Amino acid sequence: MSFSAVEVIAAKRDCRTLSRAQIDWVVDAYTRGEVADEQMAALAMAILLNGMEPGEIAHWTQAMIDSGEVLDFGDVGRPLVDKHSTGGVGDKITLPLAPLVAACGAAVPQLSGRGLGHTGGTLDKLEAVPGWRASLTTDEITAQLREVGAVVCATTPTLAPADKRLYALRDVTGTVESVPLIASSIMSKKLAEGTGGLVLDVKVGSGAFMKTLPRAGELADAMTAIGAAHGLPTTALLTDMSRPLGRCVGNALEVAESVEVLRGGGPADLVSLTVALATEMLALAGLPDADPAAVLASGAAYDVWERMIAAQGGDPSAPLPVAAHVETVVAERSGIFAGADALAVGTAAWKLGAGRARKEDPVQAGAGVRLLVDPGDEVRPGTPLAELHTDDDARLPTARRLLAGAALMITTDPPPERDLVLDVRRGS
Amino acid sequence: MSFSAVEVIAAKRDCRTLSRAQIDWVVDAYTRGEVADEQMAALAMAILLNGMEPGEIAHWTQAMIDSGEVLDFGDVGRPLVDKHSTGGVGDKITLPLAPLVAACGAAVPQLSGRGLGHTGGTLDKLEAVPGWRASLTTDEITAQLREVGAVVCATTPTLAPADKRLYALRDVTGTVESVPLIASSIMSKKLAEGTGGLVLDVKVGSGAFMKTLPRAGELADAMTAIGAAHGLPTTALLTDMSRPLGRCVGNALEVAESVEVLRGGGPADLVSLTVALATEMLALAGLPDADPAAVLASGAAYDVWERMIAAQGGDPSAPLPVAAHVETVVAERSGIFAGADALAVGTAAWKLGAGRARKEDPVQAGAGVRLLVDPGDEVRPGTPLAELHTDDDARLPTARRLLAGAALMITTDPPPERDLVLDVRRGS
Repeated sequence: MSFSAVEVIAAKRDCRTLSRAQIDWVVDAYTRGEVADEQMAALAMAILLNGMEPGEIAHWTQAMIDSGEVLDFGDVGRPLVDKHSTGGVGDKITLPLAPLVAACGAAVPQLSGRGLGHTGGTLDKLEAVPGWRASLTTDEITAQLREVGAVVCATTPTLAPADKRLYALRDVTGTVESVPLIASSIMSKKLAEGTGGLVLDVKVGSGAFMKTLPRAGELADAMTAIGAAHGLPTTALLTDMSRPLGRCVGNALEVAESVEVLRGGGPADLVSLTVALATEMLALAGLPDADPAAVLASGAAYDVWERMIAAQGGDPSAPLPVAAHVETVVAERSGIFAGADALAVGTAAWKLGAGRARKEDPVQAGAGVRLLVDPGDEVRPGTPLAELHTDDDARLPTARRLLAGAALMITTDPPPERDLVLDVRRGS
Repeated sequence: MSFSAVEVIAAKRDCRTLSRAQIDWVVDAYTRGEVADEQMAALAMAILLNGMEPGEIAHWTQAMIDSGEVLDFGDVGRPLVDKHSTGGVGDKITLPLAPLVAACGAAVPQLSGRGLGHTGGTLDKLEAVPGWRASLTTDEITAQLREVGAVVCATTPTLAPADKRLYALRDVTGTVESVPLIASSIMSKKLAEGTGGLVLDVKVGSGAFMKTLPRAGELADAMTAIGAAHGLPTTALLTDMSRPLGRCVGNALEVAESVEVLRGGGPADLVSLTVALATEMLALAGLPDADPAAVLASGAAYDVWERMIAAQGGDPSAPLPVAAHVETVVAERSGIFAGADALAVGTAAWKLGAGRARKEDPVQAGAGVRLLVDPGDEVRPGTPLAELHTDDDARLPTARRLLAGAALMITTDPPPERDLVLDVRRGS
């Protein structure tokens, strides 16, 4: 069935529900270049301002999936289960989580992206490991899922190409902030991957895309509804991103901290969220009796990590890159460290070279921020609070400015206990 | 001052008022190609859905004007006054009006466009006159205003180029129907022309862009407010477009009917609206004592017409083109002719070849529809109601279908008196 682009745009502009045929046509025509970027931009703005019904969002997601290839990892001998995070500061959870869930008996295909702005990308982090490569063929992914149980690699270009084009367009047209478009973008890629269950880590707070719990809840509900409409068991955890996860933000720094967790140590918040997400994933994988905390402590997850890194050409025992310059930020007064603001720390790490402003920019493997105190610690004038790591010392003043004042908060009273998991939403 | 396009789009998306600096920047950057079509399309949709304040509309209009040249016809020895119509079926008013107002002592620079869709373009109509040319230089326009008092010609490409680009973009992105964008588009061209007064003919009804009086009133108010903000005395007449103006729709057919009016005859509605608009224009030109009805009856306006046509290479005494095929539509039952539907007649004339579907299409000079009865006339089965004119008889069945049924309405009771001028709005 064929439509005119103006007719479809006008329908959404005038608050009408788009039919399945209209959605199929406009997404396909956009992929083929028949619908122009300016037409899709006007439609995206109309969707952002006038919204979409759940049925429209499910059809839109299906049209994105249909624009490309649907992967099939065949029989890898284990149940497939996947995780997606909406992105946060210090969010290296995938690194310990994928080997942990694999060590518990499931197969975890984590097709990931690179970072843009202040939230890092999983591939950028793993590329700090000497020799590790992000690009795998579908056959290589399948073999690694069967033999190791965990794969973290780049998405293939054939997966939901309409979403790739639309995502780039939204980025330059002020149409990123649409729950239906965010939800369908994430879910189309996960559904095209062919996973058997999906756990969503929806971040909430200053360092996250969604700053408030209601907004994050709206996104979580939209995504679990898409999962339900497509028969994919989906659970969303709404988790705190007002502070960074763990103490380290930056590529090699986060790999090192993940290895600590895999060896049974590491910061408590990181361990706790890793285990919480693993528990949900294992439940969806039909392995509710697995005990991820015990598996983590046993070292079995670290063994999977070593095999996962080695399978993609990496050397898990090689020293990680370090930055050429390290500067320490100290406390200026006495009190109790109340925690670091996620956005400030994320932006500082980004400006130090850990992230990129444009997608073609390189990243520094060693750059970033390492916090040296935990919330609740007493500090005095001169107590080291954080280290700034960078290869380019011209970047230090900006990072220093970002971490001045309330970014590393010192108070008189001890901070309240942090609630890491704020809510859970399940597809019905 | 420089902004990012996303920042400006996001401001309007989030219902904020755009600053003068933001508007100046985005329109200028769009004209230079720094802001891309997809970015302007997203902004146009956000403006359509979230609106603009009167101050924003005035700044947007000024930015459109500033994107190109501002004309200055210098001292032509008469007060300058202009008219704009939002477009209707059989709306040939410019043809008798410009010579009439010139004959009363004002100077009328009518920089006009070509038609698209079912509403005809003034230039297309005048090009039916053998030899007449639409393109004049600014010096030629000035000389003709001084010597003849009336010019109807094509707009120069240097007049509000941002508006030209934006208009083409809106056409393909479902963003035409925005009162702020329509009002600023029309007013930027008229203000850049440098007229001393402006009368707007805002059409209302099936054959017009604005179908209802409130919507047309909103557009009229937006335009008179822009005029007031720029110090241009502006009056808007809201006039009926539920029926065609006069009996003829089509290029040569409308020229012939205009000549009838200029010779003191012609349909009563056409004469009445021509005189009403002339009266408003002469008031704005500071000539309130002029008597356009008397001047029309005297033949003085026809003399100006002949000189105006001749000054642009046309031969006012040459026979006009006629169509190769003429078919008559007859009444199928007895009753009283209640009037023709403007949209049906306009569309029929368009499909017969009088208009174009795409801006590069040619038009037929002789094609169109001529009504043979007036509202209130008694008809019987077989009474001729209308003639269809075309050079291509394959177009006849479509036109015949469009004029079947209620398009040429026959009733048992006489139709109510037609109110041609529905409302008047003046800038304050």
